[in-house]
Amino acid sequence: MGRWEPDAQGRLGRAALELYLDPGYEQTTVADIAARAGVTERTFFRHFADKREVLFAGSAAFQQTVLSAIADHTEATTALAAAAAGMDAAAAFLQSSPDPTFARRRAAVIAANASLQERELLKLATVTSASASALVERGFDADDAAIAAEAAMAAFRIAFERWIASDEPLDLRELVAEGVARFRSLA
Amino acid sequence: MGRWEPDAQGRLGRAALELYLDPGYEQTTVADIAARAGVTERTFFRHFADKREVLFAGSAAFQQTVLSAIADHTEATTALAAAAAGMDAAAAFLQSSPDPTFARRRAAVIAANASLQERELLKLATVTSASASALVERGFDADDAAIAAEAAMAAFRIAFERWIASDEPLDLRELVAEGVARFRSLA
Repeated sequence: MGRWEPDAQGRLGRAALELYLDPGYEQTTVADIAARAGVTERTFFRHFADKREVLFAGSAAFQQTVLSAIADHTEATTALAAAAAGMDAAAAFLQSSPDPTFARRRAAVIAANASLQERELLKLATVTSASASALVERGFDADDAAIAAEAAMAAFRIAFERWIASDEPLDLRELVAEGVARFRSLA
Repeated sequence: MGRWEPDAQGRLGRAALELYLDPGYEQTTVADIAARAGVTERTFFRHFADKREVLFAGSAAFQQTVLSAIADHTEATTALAAAAAGMDAAAAFLQSSPDPTFARRRAAVIAANASLQERELLKLATVTSASASALVERGFDADDAAIAAEAAMAAFRIAFERWIASDEPLDLRELVAEGVARFRSLA
């Protein structure tokens, strides 16, 4: 195994996910992941801090997608519409993944482990609060921004759960839009 | 130290919170907590599974308060109104605590530790999903129930953060009601 390791990070991520599904997250060591990916443990640690972080390597890109959309969709004239634009971009981001089953398999691993669920919730809460700040940057009232960011994220999470639970292919962007519409109709 | 330990659980909880604030959660051991409360470690473990659980001992009562309110407030004729009744009861529950500074000090400890934040978010997510089920029991549409439970919990969390951050005494129930009203006005 030389220093030239094409897409070591991608192979490590795929190997980890396979092992986290079978035999399971708790049962898998970094050594197992590295062996399956055909790299050394040292290579693993060049890409990920620990085995948990493999599952959250996309978090920064996800958040950046949301924040950019909020900043860019200047045609959205209410805090809720701007927050919804952020979540629409997040849905497009997940759907455009080169491996469309990744999000679903990742969610199955997270659902099976309380400490991973907790980490996922904290990551989403971080996106929510960053979204609220981005809405304030756009000039929306801070209280409206906080509520709109929460509403859009809740719509996203409910849509995402339906999306991954469905046996038929659904459009995540449509599900998010339906969720936001349902928020409006609650009032 | 005999077998007769009046309110050992309460003393342990207060001792733990004091130590979690100073010197800090990470720096505090179960032995430290037991010593400050004047009980044995064994007594600690009769009341709490570990030092983290001291902070979440009230979770079951909190959730039960919310679910009972949703079931009982039959005059609430929309999913959002019923979910809001649950969060109003939660606010009353926290405000009626014999130690009004407890919630604030507990929140300060949690805010300082990522793993505690994660646990808190998971507990609140559990209340949210149980609330949605309680709304379905009440006969509301499942999709409306999911969104209403999320909206009410988001209003609660935003209200709670404002409540604990304020130097002046605020009414948490009023803050929750304002948050729910703001959700309505978003639409």
